[in-house]
Amino acid sequence: MAELFRVLPPAEALRVFLDHLPKGVRTERLPTTEALGRVLAEELTAPESLPAFPRSTMDGYAVRASDTFGAGETLPAYLSVVGEVAMGRAADLEVGSGQAAVVHTGGMIPPGADAVVMIERTQKLDEASIEVLRPVAPGENVILEGEDVKEGEPLLAPGHIIRPQDVGGLLALGITMVRVASRPRVAILSTGDEVVRPDALPAFGQVRDVNTYTVSALVRRAGGLPIEQGIVGDRFEALQETARKGLDEADALVISAGSSVSVRDLTARVVNGLGEPGVLVHGVSVKPGKPTILGVCGTKPVIGLPGNPVSAMVVAGLFLVPLLYRLQGREHPPSPLLAKARLSCNVPSISGREDHVPVRLVERNGELWADPVFGKSNLIHTLVKADGLAGVPLDSNGLHEGEWVEVRLF
Amino acid sequence: MAELFRVLPPAEALRVFLDHLPKGVRTERLPTTEALGRVLAEELTAPESLPAFPRSTMDGYAVRASDTFGAGETLPAYLSVVGEVAMGRAADLEVGSGQAAVVHTGGMIPPGADAVVMIERTQKLDEASIEVLRPVAPGENVILEGEDVKEGEPLLAPGHIIRPQDVGGLLALGITMVRVASRPRVAILSTGDEVVRPDALPAFGQVRDVNTYTVSALVRRAGGLPIEQGIVGDRFEALQETARKGLDEADALVISAGSSVSVRDLTARVVNGLGEPGVLVHGVSVKPGKPTILGVCGTKPVIGLPGNPVSAMVVAGLFLVPLLYRLQGREHPPSPLLAKARLSCNVPSISGREDHVPVRLVERNGELWADPVFGKSNLIHTLVKADGLAGVPLDSNGLHEGEWVEVRLF
Repeated sequence: MAELFRVLPPAEALRVFLDHLPKGVRTERLPTTEALGRVLAEELTAPESLPAFPRSTMDGYAVRASDTFGAGETLPAYLSVVGEVAMGRAADLEVGSGQAAVVHTGGMIPPGADAVVMIERTQKLDEASIEVLRPVAPGENVILEGEDVKEGEPLLAPGHIIRPQDVGGLLALGITMVRVASRPRVAILSTGDEVVRPDALPAFGQVRDVNTYTVSALVRRAGGLPIEQGIVGDRFEALQETARKGLDEADALVISAGSSVSVRDLTARVVNGLGEPGVLVHGVSVKPGKPTILGVCGTKPVIGLPGNPVSAMVVAGLFLVPLLYRLQGREHPPSPLLAKARLSCNVPSISGREDHVPVRLVERNGELWADPVFGKSNLIHTLVKADGLAGVPLDSNGLHEGEWVEVRLF
Repeated sequence: MAELFRVLPPAEALRVFLDHLPKGVRTERLPTTEALGRVLAEELTAPESLPAFPRSTMDGYAVRASDTFGAGETLPAYLSVVGEVAMGRAADLEVGSGQAAVVHTGGMIPPGADAVVMIERTQKLDEASIEVLRPVAPGENVILEGEDVKEGEPLLAPGHIIRPQDVGGLLALGITMVRVASRPRVAILSTGDEVVRPDALPAFGQVRDVNTYTVSALVRRAGGLPIEQGIVGDRFEALQETARKGLDEADALVISAGSSVSVRDLTARVVNGLGEPGVLVHGVSVKPGKPTILGVCGTKPVIGLPGNPVSAMVVAGLFLVPLLYRLQGREHPPSPLLAKARLSCNVPSISGREDHVPVRLVERNGELWADPVFGKSNLIHTLVKADGLAGVPLDSNGLHEGEWVEVRLF
């Protein structure tokens, strides 16, 4: 209560928060085979051309295309077969004018040849000669050297999230190690005299910890490593000590604060005590989630989440997820899964506040509808029952029944 | 070549394939904290009500609402304060008519009270009495017992993929263990006399293995555990032996076949030799990916992928991914990330064939455009350069420049 709340719009709050972070990304080198889903931290270019030699895309005969020009069923081209290119071997023969060599799909095109005639378009006369029944153009049924990638060609840029085809594409070029962003370690601390562990039998007045685990799961999903610090009571010294320990071990700290006004103030004092500049944002114009704290202590980011589980998840989505990708060297998180749906009832809001409304998606009359799951922001099961969040923009007084909204799916 | 190809449309091929699998899902029990992203294998209902006691959503005073009716700035209601409910404790007092008790956000509402007056709406007269400046309705600022979830209420159904809020919601109810589908083990075998390991320096005629790693990554993404069997040359006995070993250890087998016609036939023979019924589908009307083999050997599914890396990935997306979710007890894979974009050029196709075209997404004049990445299906970097796949439906002769298409993002 001692502090003046300076309530910022979410986008501005995020900007202020991220702008105070030092640049630079912690990185590590990993086998490419273990890099799926990781954020690339180096510029990759092709160290060699792929393929390194011309290859056939068909089973057939490597020939000089010009030898087949004008060939047809009635006037086939006669070619003498000079040998076969074995799979996995360099071609140890040359194809001259009037000659052909047996090749298999994926096999090397021998020097002298510039096209492949499909076996179905030929007729075998004897062991050493064939008839070609259709002409081929130069390059037909051939992959040229470097047709996939040329040596020196840019492949992937820093910030790229590695996908299955990237793993394959890099290994094809012999890139067996890559430099990626290290997983950001996030210390998570739950506070509240009423909060007990999930395996405890709560007495009247006690509730089980939710936020440690929802936040931990969000951290893992966004590429981070959660470090669960456990539950601390609402006492400044104990909180301060655990928070400092957490921040020392981690790259970022999340404090899931108690929800009462006095306890929120406690979190701000703890953050301010962890290092300069301390609290940067105290209060965001978002519902749920107004009592959010964003700070930087020394070089490390600290987020004070509201204690209500729904608010905590919405705020973690708005600030913690972008933070984690920033720590991994990305400007933005990857695009979320979106669905367009029509609102099944009016959703009131206030201009100057961004609302995030849990909705369930239901198909009715061939259209997708978003049914708001109403409930207080303390009720985690409003999110369990929901398929996603519909946003009411900052400048809107609410949305009308039947209006189309974009739903960010969980 | 010995077999008659029976080319099926992709949807029918998938149906035939999955219909031949035995029902039933291999399951295991896991700590809920480790179940993120796993597929639930049991019906979950609430073992208790949440919250287990009525809670305040505000800092203030628990009162009987009727005592505040008609209260206002000029005519406040006078209440005597009988005590405070400490956080994390059962209320050890009762609120009678004309009485109030101090409560904090999240604290228990004491018996006798049915509403909470925010502290800002009160004035303290002395240690033992307050003025209430505004009326409250019964239930105001209170979460009722069971308002989040009622005992016995259904929570989540089998097949549900566990999200962060589900982890939190289950733990809030003390559900610390859940039964989930076991990760399907998928043996992956690459074949081809020309294929070498990614860490090898390929000689002319040799190429590095790509498919083992793209398929392995797709398996991991779809919740499975890849078991890499390495590379086997194109010899029936060696293939058969490694395939049998793989299938014995795993729940499914993927053979990334060589691409030549004779080698494709080899794969079919291997599959037929692994058990009844053997090959069910040999050839699918899809581009790329026509020479796909789908089979069931004994009780286990086997997929013969085309050797071309692009075909292998497209076919794995069409058949292996749905298979993995089926093995985890889901009717369908989760929805892919989709984008609507306009085609930047004509894409020819043939009616009766489903095409999957790699595209890059580019914003031009405020619209999203899909630029096809043309290239033969042997070129893995066409997929590295692409953002997703645009589909040309089975009954279409192609798509026109400017047409809107749905792009499945990687």
